[in-house]
Amino acid sequence: MVRVGIFGYGNLGRGVEKAIKQNPDMTLVAVFTRRNPQDLKIETADATVCNVKDIAEYKDKIDVMILCGGSATDLPTQTPDMAKYFNVIDSFDTHARIPEHFKNVDAAAKEGGKVAIISVGWDPGMFSLNRLYSAVILPEGKDYTFWGKGVSQGHSDAIRRIDGVLDAKQYTIPVPEALERVRSGENPDLTTREKHTRECFVVAEDGADLSRIENEIKTMPNYFADYDTTVHFISKEELVRDHSKMGHGGFVIRSGKTGDGNSHIIEYSLKLDSNPEFTSSVLVAYARAAFRLNNEGVKGCKSVLDIAPSYLSIKSGEELRKELL
Amino acid sequence: MVRVGIFGYGNLGRGVEKAIKQNPDMTLVAVFTRRNPQDLKIETADATVCNVKDIAEYKDKIDVMILCGGSATDLPTQTPDMAKYFNVIDSFDTHARIPEHFKNVDAAAKEGGKVAIISVGWDPGMFSLNRLYSAVILPEGKDYTFWGKGVSQGHSDAIRRIDGVLDAKQYTIPVPEALERVRSGENPDLTTREKHTRECFVVAEDGADLSRIENEIKTMPNYFADYDTTVHFISKEELVRDHSKMGHGGFVIRSGKTGDGNSHIIEYSLKLDSNPEFTSSVLVAYARAAFRLNNEGVKGCKSVLDIAPSYLSIKSGEELRKELL
Repeated sequence: MVRVGIFGYGNLGRGVEKAIKQNPDMTLVAVFTRRNPQDLKIETADATVCNVKDIAEYKDKIDVMILCGGSATDLPTQTPDMAKYFNVIDSFDTHARIPEHFKNVDAAAKEGGKVAIISVGWDPGMFSLNRLYSAVILPEGKDYTFWGKGVSQGHSDAIRRIDGVLDAKQYTIPVPEALERVRSGENPDLTTREKHTRECFVVAEDGADLSRIENEIKTMPNYFADYDTTVHFISKEELVRDHSKMGHGGFVIRSGKTGDGNSHIIEYSLKLDSNPEFTSSVLVAYARAAFRLNNEGVKGCKSVLDIAPSYLSIKSGEELRKELL
Repeated sequence: MVRVGIFGYGNLGRGVEKAIKQNPDMTLVAVFTRRNPQDLKIETADATVCNVKDIAEYKDKIDVMILCGGSATDLPTQTPDMAKYFNVIDSFDTHARIPEHFKNVDAAAKEGGKVAIISVGWDPGMFSLNRLYSAVILPEGKDYTFWGKGVSQGHSDAIRRIDGVLDAKQYTIPVPEALERVRSGENPDLTTREKHTRECFVVAEDGADLSRIENEIKTMPNYFADYDTTVHFISKEELVRDHSKMGHGGFVIRSGKTGDGNSHIIEYSLKLDSNPEFTSSVLVAYARAAFRLNNEGVKGCKSVLDIAPSYLSIKSGEELRKELL
C-alpha cells in the first residue's frame, strides 16, 4: 500500500481524495490544513485531519505527500519544504517559473533523500508529454496547443478585479477553423487571435457602467486585448446556475513531414467534465511512481518527462506487456 | 553522435535511413543485407552496405542496430542474435508472442550487456503508451482502439492466397458511428462488426470465378467473417495507380469517470501518409534512448512502456523543462 497525505483541501485536494478511492493500492492517511482541523469534514472515514503544524509527526507514516495548493504563493515554498520529509507531487503550473521551482525542489529532495515530481496534471503534464513524444517522432514539424472549451481561472480573476464587477467566469474557446487548418497538415502560422476566442459572463454591481466594464475587459493587455472577446452581463443567479461546472480540455497537435514529403498528424485531446478531478487523478498516478522510484533509491526532482510510464501502473511489467503492448 | 546500423532494407529500413537524416545527433554507419551488397543502392553516401555475415566486424563501430525485418520469421531470431553484440531496436508486432519474444531478447541482451527495446512503432508502440497513460489516470473506464483508414498487410496477404487472385489490397476502416458513440462517453460494448469495416480491391485472373472469390473472402474465418466486407474487382493498373499509398492511422480513446460521475474522454489519434516512415521515425527516437540507457549501465530488454520520455529527445532536461513542460 502507498500511504498518501493530502496538503490542502480545496477542489484539487478533494479530487485527490476521490482518486485514491479508485486505486486499490493506495490509502489516504491524513489531510493537512491551515484551518482548524475540527472545522474540516473529509470523505474518508479512517483518515485524520491535522493542522499543518503537526506534519513532522507524519514523517514515517506517509509515503507520498500530494500538495494541492496554488502555484502563485503556496507551492513555491510548500513543495521544497515538504520534499525534505516526504516524497512529494505537485501541480505547479506557472510555466515561466518551472526551471526555478525545479531547482529549489531538487535541492530539498536531495537533502531529504526523497523523490519530488513537479508540474503534474494535464498542462503542464499530459500535454507536455505529448509535445515531447510528438516532437521526437516528427523532428521536422510544428506543434499546436489549443485550450478549451473551459473556464480560465486567471482570466476570470482578472475580470473580477475590475471596478463594478461582482463576479465573472471566462471561457477560453478554440477556433474551429484553426483546428481544422492544423489537422489538414497545412502547418499554418496562427496569431493569438486566430487560435482562441474568449467569452465572458459578468455579474455587475447595480447601476455600474456596463459599457465601461465591457471596454475595460476587451482592452485589457495580455489577458484580452489580443483576442476576439464577447462579454455577456448576467445575474448572480444565472452565473451560479449556468456557469458553475468545472469542465475543460484541449488539443495538442503536431503536424510534420518525413521522407519525401509524407505528412503525418499526431493529435491528443482531452474532454473533461471536471478539471480538478482529472488533474487529481494524474497526481495520484504519479504518486505511485514517486513511491516506487524512491524505494529503488532514486532522489531529487523530476517532471513527468523523466518518469518511465510503467512506474505509473499498479500492474507488473509482465501484465502490462501482455495486456497493453 | 549515435552510430546506427540498419538490418534489412525494405520499406522500414529505407524509412529509418530517411529518419536518421532528420536527427542531427545520429549517423548511419552501415546497412546490412542478406543479398549481394553490390546489388543494393542506398541514399546515404558515406554509409556502407554489408552482407549480414560480416556483421561481427561492426561490433565496436555501431552503437545501435535497428532491426527492420518482419515479425513472422525474421525478428524472433534476429533480435536475440543481434542483442548479444549491439543495443537493438525492433518493431516486433505479433501481440500474442510479445511475452515470449521479450524473454528471449532479455536473456541475450543481458548476456551481451546491451539494451534492447522491442515492439517499437505505433501499435504496438505509441498506442500502447496511450493505453497505459489513460488507464492509470482513469482506472474506472474503458478503452477503445480503432485502426485505419489504412491497408492491412496481413489481410491483403490472406486475399492473395485465394485461388484465382493475382493481387489485392485490403483497407481497415473505423465505423464513424462507433467512434462518435465512444467519444460521447456512452462506454458502449461494441462487437467486432460494429467497430470496423473491411474494403478489398482485388485483381483476379482472367476468367476466374469472381463470385466464388468474393464469397471466399467474405466468409474467411478470423480475417473477414466477423466484419462487413466490401469487395471490388479492379485491373492491375488500377491497383497500382489508386492503391499504392501506404497511409494508415487510428485512434486510442479512453472514456472514464471520476468522483461522483464526472466523465472524461482522452483521445489519441494518428493520420499517417506513410505507415513505414512513421514507424521508422519512432524506431530512431528509441535508438537514441537505448544508446543513452546503455551508457548509464542499463542492460536487458525493455518496451516503450519502460522508457522515460526525456531519453528520446536530443535536448537536455533543462531545455525540455523550459520549452515543453
